[in-house]
Amino acid sequence: MSDSSEFPTEHLVPPEAVPYGAVPLLVDARGAPRPSAAEEARTLVSRSVVGALATVSDDGSPWASLAMYGLLPDGTPVLCLSTLAEHGRNLHREPRASLLVAAPESGRDPLACGRVTLAGRAERPRGERLEAARAAHASASPLASAYQRFGDFSLWTLEIERVRWVGGYGRMDWTDAESYRRAEPDPIAEHAARAAAHLNEDHADALLAIGRVLGGCPDAVAATCEGLDRYGLDLRLETSRGIATSRVGFDRRVVDAPGLRDATVALARAARAGLG
Amino acid sequence: MSDSSEFPTEHLVPPEAVPYGAVPLLVDARGAPRPSAAEEARTLVSRSVVGALATVSDDGSPWASLAMYGLLPDGTPVLCLSTLAEHGRNLHREPRASLLVAAPESGRDPLACGRVTLAGRAERPRGERLEAARAAHASASPLASAYQRFGDFSLWTLEIERVRWVGGYGRMDWTDAESYRRAEPDPIAEHAARAAAHLNEDHADALLAIGRVLGGCPDAVAATCEGLDRYGLDLRLETSRGIATSRVGFDRRVVDAPGLRDATVALARAARAGLG
Repeated sequence: MSDSSEFPTEHLVPPEAVPYGAVPLLVDARGAPRPSAAEEARTLVSRSVVGALATVSDDGSPWASLAMYGLLPDGTPVLCLSTLAEHGRNLHREPRASLLVAAPESGRDPLACGRVTLAGRAERPRGERLEAARAAHASASPLASAYQRFGDFSLWTLEIERVRWVGGYGRMDWTDAESYRRAEPDPIAEHAARAAAHLNEDHADALLAIGRVLGGCPDAVAATCEGLDRYGLDLRLETSRGIATSRVGFDRRVVDAPGLRDATVALARAARAGLG
Repeated sequence: MSDSSEFPTEHLVPPEAVPYGAVPLLVDARGAPRPSAAEEARTLVSRSVVGALATVSDDGSPWASLAMYGLLPDGTPVLCLSTLAEHGRNLHREPRASLLVAAPESGRDPLACGRVTLAGRAERPRGERLEAARAAHASASPLASAYQRFGDFSLWTLEIERVRWVGGYGRMDWTDAESYRRAEPDPIAEHAARAAAHLNEDHADALLAIGRVLGGCPDAVAATCEGLDRYGLDLRLETSRGIATSRVGFDRRVVDAPGLRDATVALARAARAGLG
């Protein structure tokens, strides 16, 4: 989808160099594993039930509207839209659509939040797929099934053709529909925020040891966990060289909350053994 | 924009009647004033700096993406977009766009939140308008002005042509660009949530008196303030007939936080005088 002949392919950095604050050092220790773009996208989409739907209005202009969605087991969004609403009428005329799902804002920069655009074609499901779509949409909200019973509402699946994931600064990628559908949402996503807060409140020393020994920053003097997922931790480290962000991988793939605790304890032990 | 020949013009209610829960009684006491759709839209848009932008991709399909915006004094959004991003390239080719701004979700129903779609045409501002646009965008975030200095980013104003506001169930309207631009954002919007919480925590008796005497529900046994604005209060009342929502207007147009307190006290006094 690039117009490669017309536009630059890299950021055109202003001549006065670093545009704001200190740019963190990026330290990915020993090729620490990260979720793929498809996994990030599946996880983010699975954590919400509301997105912004882009459709095409009758004059060809693009129309952004709020829409609730459920998810089929393969991550395909299911929408239930009224023809009283512009987006509902638009899809009957032009089935191409895209759905933006954004993670809640965090921190001072509104553009640092994760988001995904799922672009494709809306279809009216039939037969078994209709039943699956009904169930998926109903699971989005206790009130969802009520909409399905109004005669002016129709169920739609958004048959995904391309996926754009943006994780914040410098973390973004395209992925294809098949990779998206095959990827698993992060099994510990619902525990991640609480686990990170717990680590920061009660285990700052362990995080610092992890950052020094496993995170590639032996000169770190303070460490904060900024996020975690099935594959590892994201650390923010204060070092003599400035602020660094480091990725430290778990020694296993975590599948549940007890496993997350075990994997984090194992990291702390390994770090302390390395210090000792 | 309606396709009136094809689609129903009212909700097609299922035959099994009320689809969920008890539908609240709606009691608007004595034609109590409410903000206009234009005022609701201006207020909602002024309370955020991030929206979902719908643009048209090179194959004609609609593209939803996250965008930060600032506001000119008349509520015109200012965007700063990179041509490295699909939305930035799209606008250079097809300037028609719309921006969805949603209030934070509240309560159990994701579709009950307020939202606005501003639809129009993106333009590259020039001269004095460019300077105003720079300042407006820079005010959106401490990091905003940094983006303006990258050569791949361009400033755009979204020249609004039509405005759709949805306030939740049964509260929605179109408004035109001129009404939107002329309307004032609610001057007490930033205080409203805290003021409502304070009323609910410390002045439940006063709210109940207001609901009974001024809110059209003499049989109310409990009252909660669900929202307030420059023109009045929204109350949720438990009555012998069921749950009612009632609008009670202030005796003045409130312009600041002290005025809000005075107007609320005046309502409580009037209600107690009516009870006595």
